[in-house]
Amino acid sequence: MPGVAHTETRFDRRLAEILEYAIEVFYERGYEGASMRDLSRATGMSLAGLYYYFESKERLLYLIQKHTFKTIVQRLKERLKDANQPEQRIRVFILNHLEYFLSNQKAMKVLSHEDDALKNGFGAEIAAIKREYYHTCLDLMDEFKAAKGLEFNSRIAVLSLFGMMNWIYTWYKPRVDADASELARDMGDIFLRGICTGGQRGTRRKV
Amino acid sequence: MPGVAHTETRFDRRLAEILEYAIEVFYERGYEGASMRDLSRATGMSLAGLYYYFESKERLLYLIQKHTFKTIVQRLKERLKDANQPEQRIRVFILNHLEYFLSNQKAMKVLSHEDDALKNGFGAEIAAIKREYYHTCLDLMDEFKAAKGLEFNSRIAVLSLFGMMNWIYTWYKPRVDADASELARDMGDIFLRGICTGGQRGTRRKV
Repeated sequence: MPGVAHTETRFDRRLAEILEYAIEVFYERGYEGASMRDLSRATGMSLAGLYYYFESKERLLYLIQKHTFKTIVQRLKERLKDANQPEQRIRVFILNHLEYFLSNQKAMKVLSHEDDALKNGFGAEIAAIKREYYHTCLDLMDEFKAAKGLEFNSRIAVLSLFGMMNWIYTWYKPRVDADASELARDMGDIFLRGICTGGQRGTRRKV
Repeated sequence: MPGVAHTETRFDRRLAEILEYAIEVFYERGYEGASMRDLSRATGMSLAGLYYYFESKERLLYLIQKHTFKTIVQRLKERLKDANQPEQRIRVFILNHLEYFLSNQKAMKVLSHEDDALKNGFGAEIAAIKREYYHTCLDLMDEFKAAKGLEFNSRIAVLSLFGMMNWIYTWYKPRVDADASELARDMGDIFLRGICTGGQRGTRRKV
């Protein structure tokens, strides 16, 4: 989890390490299948210490999710500052997502799998960050539509794009497949041409 | 699991019922988190009976996966018999996948999650059925490329398409979103225009 390296104190570094171990455990055993005992074994922390600092398995998953989504959103905001063209802004979104994804594949698999595992307060906070991320993408889509005078279902377009990108965790092989920037270009091509062509207002083909 | 309805004997019907209950349990608790005891409770079968007929949790997951993929592939073959145009054949593939998917959402979530849970013989047999399905789609892509004189990375295209379609299990809301045929049209539009436009041999835009 490279992003955690921004932390400063020795305790912060230790926390980052423990989250990395927790990702490994959730990745190997699944969130439901993993126990605090497994987490204690993997992190080298006593069971009592684990409960003392992290309270529960749920809170560990929450910390992993919060860190991941906050990092992705933060990086995206930085990068979007330098991109002005609507098409370019969507490409920045795709590249930012895929770069983080491919550098943190285990975390992304855990997050994709445990999408709805968090309940109540934890779940609501993570859902809010994800909603912000989704709406950022929806806004980019709307800018693009307005600039090009296009007409398409933004919700289906955004969710199709997320699907294309997130499904990668099931098939990506570093030795076979291209790196993040080439993949971002190929997926960006398929996606952008897909929403562009033939979708001009009033000319939508009836199928 | 509507497909199971083709079965004939009373025992077959009972088997289909038990697989449905098992899907529910895996859906609620995750495969790793579910125990044979949970499955016994949900199916109303004794624990001894469950072990006698199904041997293990793994074999239940195997039966669910085999049934699902065999049904999808079988229906696809039937439908492709009536479709001759390369574009139409890809649209048939998309519609067939989405129709099954949306009628069996819990099963599809379980299968997406437990993609790599089966080991050894069970895993190999399922992997072979899935490979056949993947290659069918790859062949459709190649027919389409040849017919249109296009140039694109078929692997990325097929896997992007699977991602668009399979990710649905994370967001689809029957009351908000369109039915399978409308969704198949929208996703088909995005995908087919995406692989079509600007991808003519020799004219590929450098990005």
